[in-house]
Order: sequence, then structure tokens, then C-alpha cells
Amino acid sequence: MPNTASDRTIAPLETPRLGEPYLLTPGPLTTAYEVKEAMLRDWGSWDGDFRAMTADLRRQLLDIAGDAKGEFDCVPMQGSGSFSVEAMLGSFVPRDGKVLVLMNGAYGKRIAQTLAYLGRDHVTIDKGDYMPPRGPEVAAALDADPAITHVVVVHCETSSGILNPLKEISEVVYARGRKLLVDSMSAFGAVPAGVADFRYEAIVSSANKCIEGVPGFGFVIARKSELEAAKGRSHSLSLDVHAQWDYMNKTGQWRYTPPTHVVAAFLEALRLHREEGGVSARGARYARNRDVMVAGMREAGFETLLADRWLSPIIVTFFSPADPAFAFDRFYDLMKEKGFIIYPGKLTVVDSFRVGCIGRMDEHVMRRVVEAARASLTEMGVANAAPPAIALAERSRLAA
Amino acid sequence: MPNTASDRTIAPLETPRLGEPYLLTPGPLTTAYEVKEAMLRDWGSWDGDFRAMTADLRRQLLDIAGDAKGEFDCVPMQGSGSFSVEAMLGSFVPRDGKVLVLMNGAYGKRIAQTLAYLGRDHVTIDKGDYMPPRGPEVAAALDADPAITHVVVVHCETSSGILNPLKEISEVVYARGRKLLVDSMSAFGAVPAGVADFRYEAIVSSANKCIEGVPGFGFVIARKSELEAAKGRSHSLSLDVHAQWDYMNKTGQWRYTPPTHVVAAFLEALRLHREEGGVSARGARYARNRDVMVAGMREAGFETLLADRWLSPIIVTFFSPADPAFAFDRFYDLMKEKGFIIYPGKLTVVDSFRVGCIGRMDEHVMRRVVEAARASLTEMGVANAAPPAIALAERSRLAA
Repeated sequence: MPNTASDRTIAPLETPRLGEPYLLTPGPLTTAYEVKEAMLRDWGSWDGDFRAMTADLRRQLLDIAGDAKGEFDCVPMQGSGSFSVEAMLGSFVPRDGKVLVLMNGAYGKRIAQTLAYLGRDHVTIDKGDYMPPRGPEVAAALDADPAITHVVVVHCETSSGILNPLKEISEVVYARGRKLLVDSMSAFGAVPAGVADFRYEAIVSSANKCIEGVPGFGFVIARKSELEAAKGRSHSLSLDVHAQWDYMNKTGQWRYTPPTHVVAAFLEALRLHREEGGVSARGARYARNRDVMVAGMREAGFETLLADRWLSPIIVTFFSPADPAFAFDRFYDLMKEKGFIIYPGKLTVVDSFRVGCIGRMDEHVMRRVVEAARASLTEMGVANAAPPAIALAERSRLAA
Repeated sequence: MPNTASDRTIAPLETPRLGEPYLLTPGPLTTAYEVKEAMLRDWGSWDGDFRAMTADLRRQLLDIAGDAKGEFDCVPMQGSGSFSVEAMLGSFVPRDGKVLVLMNGAYGKRIAQTLAYLGRDHVTIDKGDYMPPRGPEVAAALDADPAITHVVVVHCETSSGILNPLKEISEVVYARGRKLLVDSMSAFGAVPAGVADFRYEAIVSSANKCIEGVPGFGFVIARKSELEAAKGRSHSLSLDVHAQWDYMNKTGQWRYTPPTHVVAAFLEALRLHREEGGVSARGARYARNRDVMVAGMREAGFETLLADRWLSPIIVTFFSPADPAFAFDRFYDLMKEKGFIIYPGKLTVVDSFRVGCIGRMDEHVMRRVVEAARASLTEMGVANAAPPAIALAERSRLAA
């Protein structure tokens, strides 16, 4: 928890210049004004200036991934992050491969759904809304089914806000000679996810998450040997990672029209990421955001879904208060009036809402979020923010 | 040809405020500063404000398509325009369908390539670099093969700049009980492509073409009955038009993260499109751009690939001068120095280059383009811009 002394040493980040609400969501998120200002000119996608920007973007992302040996390459892909996840799955899982999908929320489920579209054989470990998949159970599943070639996992499952234990999972996967593919959409850039942090063949993220760019493309960082092997494998022309990689290496261009303005914004976001101190500093700011916000919300009577050990610095799920005067839609509107857009919950058993910690904001903002939540409760006539008993029972189940 | 009187009545459009070169390319193109300014704030993709923007965008595009009977719907799709073309093919051609692809350039070829990825049976009529596919030959191909269910064609093939005869093609397709799918990427918004202009089941375009937005998404305008029938058909989760349509209708949201800033820019571009006078006024400005530019370039000694009747108001292909002092790379750099980014040619038989007529520019700019081309020739020491004899022979072949 930050103390008053450290508060005073941190200059507040600027507030959104056009007065729009802060986005306390897992992306799109609040970005720096300079990032958006980088979109005020037009670029020719064929021109050398833009080709240099693309090369710079790829190199900087490989630097963040810590690819010191040059064994990986970075392939940006047009579309949302889910497009990049589908591109990764269709390009790196052979048509006769078999995938173990570790699921504990909406994004894990989406991976299984994608594999069903692609006609790739797969099995799942479904942990429900928020229990983490653990090493021993992954090991048991792999030992029980030698046909499994790949494991796919979501790094930070924003459905609940849990940070899955990637190092533990990667170790059992590679100890059994299988390959790991990672959806690190909402974690890459703020949580260690480099090639030396845990082993993987490919990892995916997107422009509008912890690098704090605007949405419009994602990127795949993959081992070059996997990129080579992906030739001719994709189910989709547009989502063919090998074809995009090969064309980009030969011409310096994206295969099809890139979102030029979004790319320019991303380069400015990368500059700010570097200036802040890279992954560790970005992660530290987000962790401070979480700590300040969670402490304040708990003081206000709210309870988190997850115990501290599983709380990510990305997004936090709170149980909705049991008080019948609480209604999420009204709470959302009251928070928005005060300048904060929060996020609905995705739990199936109990009502919840989520508050994101990522984006261009700091602990000063998070204190105002807590004040706004307190004031909104008062305006709704909610005297006590405590969740229903069933919610606490759910949490005990998780802790067990 | 415009005369001096009409010149004086048209106030010049503003020049790029940050001094970047004009993009004389088929998109990304030069956009209005207001379009880019619309990207200076952040939007929450789940929030009601953004959902209203998405609904507005869809409604305005249907208005442009002139869907008076409410038989069509508009489905925006993340990614480049080619992503939307693939989405259209994968969603509207049944797995047991058979497609006739009309090819006369790179984009027609890309359609055949996409169908090969999707495993959809298809045959082609390949007219080479720039000959238009004509009604009688399409009719003959359909009569010869009753298994063909769909015809796919590119509206304006920017490889050469030709505007294909869609009305003629559509008539023979529907006279034979088949269905037409149209890639109108670079024409929609400036060339008549509404549901009453010629019959089709679906048509695709993208944000960064004649509506003059910035790149980041495309859109499919399709008959609702085809959208219904597309359920469960797509090869790709991300590119499933039915799933995107269904989710958007139920929630008002895009299925996966939309390029929020690009959407905001597009709404401003739509406003300017309406303010200018819609498709006919936009098309008239581009046609003036072409007429002024082509007349000037011909006076300077350049020759167009196509005869006037096939020249689109989108982009024009010129033969490279035969003079050995002419080198495209040098010409490109000299033009760029003068504030104009031109486009390389895509012909296989003779050297060529292309000059786009679309984007936020007018005949005043096109006159400066011609001046820049003349000056660049002088700097290169090219005394005569006439093409080689083989180029003129090619053109005669086309005219025959």
C-alpha cells in the first residue's frame, strides 16, 4: 500500500484533454493525448516512411519480449486481438494437431470456440468462472492423452481479473514435450511475458492493451521455426500469419491495408512505454493503481472476488452489494457522470462488476474512482456495500 | 473537361495541415483534418455512446446504399477491406456452392486465392491485366456450367483503374438465376453501387476509400435473407458475418474490440460525404479530378493505359515513358519531394505507374500534380514522356 510520502513524489498524469470519462475497462482504455495526436496526419501504406514505422514497431515489440537470441519474430495483424488469437491457432496448430485448452473465463472459452470453427481437435480443462488452472492438473491431462500436441492458455483472464500461473503451466507442458501458445492480450507490456519469463512458441497481444495504444491491430510474437512451419497451414487468407510474415519480410509492407493512423499512435505509445521504464515500471504503476483502488473499495465495504494472491494488476472483479437498492445500470450511469466508465461483471453465479487498472492513469485517479463509488452508493441509498452470503461462499470455494 | 469559368467557382479544399504529402493512392488516402481530429478522444466500446455511434454508422451506410425497402443490413467488420471480402465469401457462398470469379487484376486474383483457402469450388474468367469482363462471356460461362451458384466481381479494379460493367454483368447473372457478390472496395461512395443501381446479394467496401475515412475496418452490406442463411457457414470465428450481425443486433456492440477511433473518424467522414452531396457529388469531384489530371498529363506527353470509356474516377494507370532517363523510383521520390505520393503500376507486360483521384483533394491539387510531374521529368532529363511502342500495341489490343 502506498503511503502519503510516496504519493507526494508522483506527479499526476494529465487528465483526458477533451473531458471524456476515464475508461476503467480492459481495453480500449484511456490513452495519452500524444498517442492520439500522432493520428493527425495521413500516411501512405506503400511509402518508405511507413515501411520504416512498421519495421520499428516490430523491432520494439521484440525488444519488449527480450528476444536476445533472435529466435523470434513479430508479426502484426489487422483486426482486434481475437483476430490475432485465431491467426495464431490456425497458423501454429497443425491440421492433425490436438489442443488442450485451459479455460477459466470467456477468453478461454473463445479459444475453444475458435478451434471448433477451425476443425482442430481439442479437449479442455474448464475451471469455471475464475479458478486458476494449475500445473499438476495440466500435467495429468497431458500424461493421460499423448495425442495432445499443444496447450493454449489465457495469461490474464479479464472475465474475473485473474492472472494465471503461466510459469508453472509452461514448465509442465515442456517437461512433457508439448508446445505452449499464449493469449497474453491484456498482460503483455505490463506483466512479464518475455521469451525468458516462461517458454512458449507464440504469444499474442494487441495495440490497445498495456502498451496503451488505440485499437485496430494485434500482434503475434512467435518462434521463427514455428513461423516457417506454418506455411500453407492457415484456414484463412487474411489471418495467415506465415503469409503476413513472409510478405512483410520481403517488402516491408503489411499484406493488406494496415490501420496506418493506429500504427502511428502505437509508435508513440511504445515511446511512452519505454520512457516510463518498460514492462516493470508499467506493471508497477498498474499494481499501484490496483492497490490504491482495492484498498479504497474495501474500506468502502466492497469485496473482491479473488484473494490477493490471484489479483492481477489489470482488472479487478468486485461483488455487487447485496443491498436491494444497488442496481448495476444505475451505478454505471452515476460513475459515468463522475467521469469513470466501469465494466459489467461476467460471473455466472453471482452479480459483479469490474474496474480496470490499466491505461493512462495513476493512483491519483484511482482515489477519485473510490470517491466516486462511495458517492454513487450514497446517491443510490446503498448503506452497506457487502455482497450476498452466496458470494462469500463462492470465494471460500476458491480459497480452498 | 472543366473550363476556366467553373474553376473559379470552386473554392479549394484545405491542404494537409501538418504538411504531409497528398496520397494519390487508392487508399489509405488524404483525409480531411476534421476526420482525424475526431480521433482525439477515447471511447469505451461497451458504452452506450459508442453503441449509438455504431448504429448511426450502419444506418448511414444503408442510406448511401439506398435500401428503401429495408431488405438489406450493414455489418461492419474489423480489419482491412480484404478481411471483409473474405468474410463475405466465407459467409455467403455455401460450402457446396460453386463460384465464377471474374478477374482482371490483382483483386480478382485475390478473390480466387481466398476461395482456394476456403476450399470453395470455383472457376475463373481471367481477362488479364485490364480487359473488362463482359456480359456475353459471363452468360456463356454460366450457361456452360449449371453448377455455378455465385458470381464474384471487383467493381473498380485498381490494378489498372478500370471500372467494370457491373450493370451488364448483374443482368446476365440474375437472368440465369445465379447470385452476385461484389467487391466495391474502391468504388462505393463515389460510383453508383446502391441496391437499385444493379442487383446483388452483398457488396463490400472499407472505411478508407471513397467515404474518405481512415483505415481499420470494412463493411458488408447484404440482403437480410442471405445474412440469415449464413448462420453456421463461416470458416472463421473472427470473419463470421452472421455472428457479427446477430451479436450487433442483439447488443449494439461489435463482437470483438472495434477500432473505436477509426469509427469516430468514419462518422465525421460520413458527415462530410453527406454535406458534399452524397455519392453523385463525391463522384463528380473525383471525375473532375481525373479529367483535369488526365488532360494535363496527356498534354505533358503521358499516355493512359485505358481508353476514356473505361477510365474510372478512382485511379488512372499511365504508361511509363520509353525514354531511358525515366526510372520509376526516381520519379516517385521527385514527386514525393513536391508533396505527392503516387503509386507503382501493377501491369505485367509494360511498365506503368498509377495516380489516384480519390481522397480529400480537388482539381486545384490535380493541376499541381501535373506541374510536379512535368517538373520531375525535366529534373530527370526526360524530354519525351511517350511510352514504348509495345504499350501502344497493348492499348490497341484492348480497344479491339
